[in-house]
Parts: sequence; structure tokens; C-alpha cells
Amino acid sequence: MKLIGYFRSGASYRVRIALNLKGIQVEHEFRHLRKGEQKAEDYLKINPQGLVPALVLDDGTVLTQSLAIMEWLEETVPQPPLLPKDPIARAKVRAFAEAIACDVHPVQNLGPLNKLAAFGVEQAEVTRWAKEVNYEGLKACEALIAKEKGPFCFGDQPTMADICLVPQLVNARRFGADISAFKRILEAEAASLKHPAFAAAVPEKQPDAE
Amino acid sequence: MKLIGYFRSGASYRVRIALNLKGIQVEHEFRHLRKGEQKAEDYLKINPQGLVPALVLDDGTVLTQSLAIMEWLEETVPQPPLLPKDPIARAKVRAFAEAIACDVHPVQNLGPLNKLAAFGVEQAEVTRWAKEVNYEGLKACEALIAKEKGPFCFGDQPTMADICLVPQLVNARRFGADISAFKRILEAEAASLKHPAFAAAVPEKQPDAE
Repeated sequence: MKLIGYFRSGASYRVRIALNLKGIQVEHEFRHLRKGEQKAEDYLKINPQGLVPALVLDDGTVLTQSLAIMEWLEETVPQPPLLPKDPIARAKVRAFAEAIACDVHPVQNLGPLNKLAAFGVEQAEVTRWAKEVNYEGLKACEALIAKEKGPFCFGDQPTMADICLVPQLVNARRFGADISAFKRILEAEAASLKHPAFAAAVPEKQPDAE
Repeated sequence: MKLIGYFRSGASYRVRIALNLKGIQVEHEFRHLRKGEQKAEDYLKINPQGLVPALVLDDGTVLTQSLAIMEWLEETVPQPPLLPKDPIARAKVRAFAEAIACDVHPVQNLGPLNKLAAFGVEQAEVTRWAKEVNYEGLKACEALIAKEKGPFCFGDQPTMADICLVPQLVNARRFGADISAFKRILEAEAASLKHPAFAAAVPEKQPDAE
């Protein structure tokens, strides 16, 4: 199996964590997003979306979209689980993961930020956009887990919620969002980063890190 | 069960289709997005994200995020299935759904468009942004299903892919994206709209339609 990713891509980071949690070793290949390597013709044949990550299976099958890849992992390698057993609890974990993966991450991602710049919005305003999107999204996420037991987002084991949260916090800080009031989020992040599966997946430890 | 939605919300439209496919009748409540009713204090207590839809179960449990709601429906009311059985096939359907739900829909949604306007970007440019996001995203989606058998996105039954596709096409047309070259997408849309579950869920047939 081969994971095509980029050290700084939040979606690639999610899949790295999930693979580590499941104990799956993969080959790594990198596409440098700021150099536009994900839009190269050879890569568009692998993923027509021109986005990372893509997980290439040994028979050549290509899986894309970090959440879909995590669900596939969960279905094919059930232990340790990335989702609780109860359907309502699963729905809450997935909703938290999607609050990040659908409503925060894509809106402050490279594509939209480049488009904003192309529309003539100044760099300081582009950064303010990304900061606000992170702050507002994470504020809602904090409310979603305010009454959940810790130390992770949902209880004493990491789930897809933590897997989506931890990479987003890298972006939130990079854009200067003040997340100091989000106590449950910070508790879940601290618990996660102590876990070897998360610790090995951090961007700065990847071979393509700059 | 009560679905809190808005006739023109693509994410609410998805959940209406899924509920119809599963044969589940629900009570409907509406929040007028252009009037900002989804950001009212009473609604933020239901969904801290201030987004629709929210599905309120009879015991008061609130489920949010359209994809998470669909997965919950699939787990609790398995027939008719919204996903194929094979894990790889499931991953491909989910990836297509997420290509829309994570990479197209949120970026051309009301929140970012309002933010663009607030940054002083002219209305014509805001619309061009939304049009481009739809066009580029759907072009990639067409490639994702180019080799899949029809008439639906993935075979002879509707899946989460069609459920995400059909509402997005309403937006694509509203913003003027030219989707005439996307043959598989148009084939899947035509097959879907003939299905009573989709036909009953179209925005213009909802009680809050204007």
C-alpha cells in the first residue's frame, strides 16, 4: 500500500494517524502542494480531484478522501476501532469529524486561499479569513464535546474526531486563531499527542518536511 | 423525529432524500438561512455550528451533519441500502459523496460567500467564485464515475453519491456553471429525479419554498 500525501496537508495527516492507529505500514510518496505537484497530469490520472491524500492499494485501486479512507480502514481492519459501537455515539463522532472536514478545513485550504488572493484580496485579509474560519469552526467543535467525557474528544480512546481535530489545530495556530478558551479541545489534543500513533504522524517528522 | 432544515439548503435536501429512500416520515421545521435564523440563540443550543440540517430524535437527541445522519440511517434502517456491500465500492461511493460534501458545497456556501462580500469582493466576482468551485468540483466528480455503470452514479441503485450529487446540481445551475459536458453526472441526475424519493425532496416542493 502506498500513501500519496504532503507533510503539511491536514487530510494526509489524518490518514497517517489512522494508519498508525491500525498498525498498518505503508510506503510514502509526496506531492508538494505549494509547487502544485498535485495538479500534474500524472497525478490527476490517480486522483482527478488533484488533492492529497490518495491511498494506492497493492492491486492499483486508488482510494481518495480522508474520511472515506478511514471508514474503509475501519471496515477492513476493525481493531482498534476509530468509532464507538453505538449508532448514536458513532453519529456524534462522525458529526464532529465532519464539522472539521466539511466546514473548517476546505474553507481555509490552499485552493480557496489562492482564489481569494486571485480576486485581489490582500494577504493580511486572506490570513484573517483563514483565522476566522478556524476560530468559529473550533468554537462550535468545543461546544459539540463540552459535555463528553475526556481525555479524548469522545471518551478514553481516540476516534475519528481526534484524528480530524489534531491536524486542524496545526492550521488554527498557523493562522493565529486564539484557541486558548477551548479546554476540551486542548485536553483531547494533549491526550492524542501523547499517543505514539499521533506522535509519529506529526508534519515535522515526515520525510518531506521542510 | 423532526428535521430542521431549509428548502434551499443542499445538506437538508440530502437528508430529505435519504429519509424518503428509507421510507421514514418526519416532522419538518424550517430555519430561513438568508434571514440568519440558523444563528439564533435558540437554534445554537440545538446545533452549535449554526447550520442546518439537524435531526431531532424523539428522545431529544440531536444529530447533525448530513453525511453522519445518512450513515446513522444506514446503520439503523439498513434497507434499502445507501451504500454497496463491498468495502472498496463503499469507499468509492463515500469518496464521491465527500468530493461534493467536503470540497464543493462548503466552499460555495452562504457563509464563505457572505465573507467574500464582506471582504469587498464584488457580487459578480462572488458569483464567479461559486460558479468555478461548482464547475471544477463537478468536473472531477464526472471523472470519478466515468467508468462506473449507470444509470445512477454507481450502478442501478441510488447511493449516497447520488444523494449528494443531485442537490449540488441545483447550486451549480444557480451559479451558472456549464455542466453540459458531464454526461455521467447528467445521466445519474435524470435517473435520480425519476425516483419518487428524490422527486418529493426537491426544494420547490417544500413547505418553506419561496
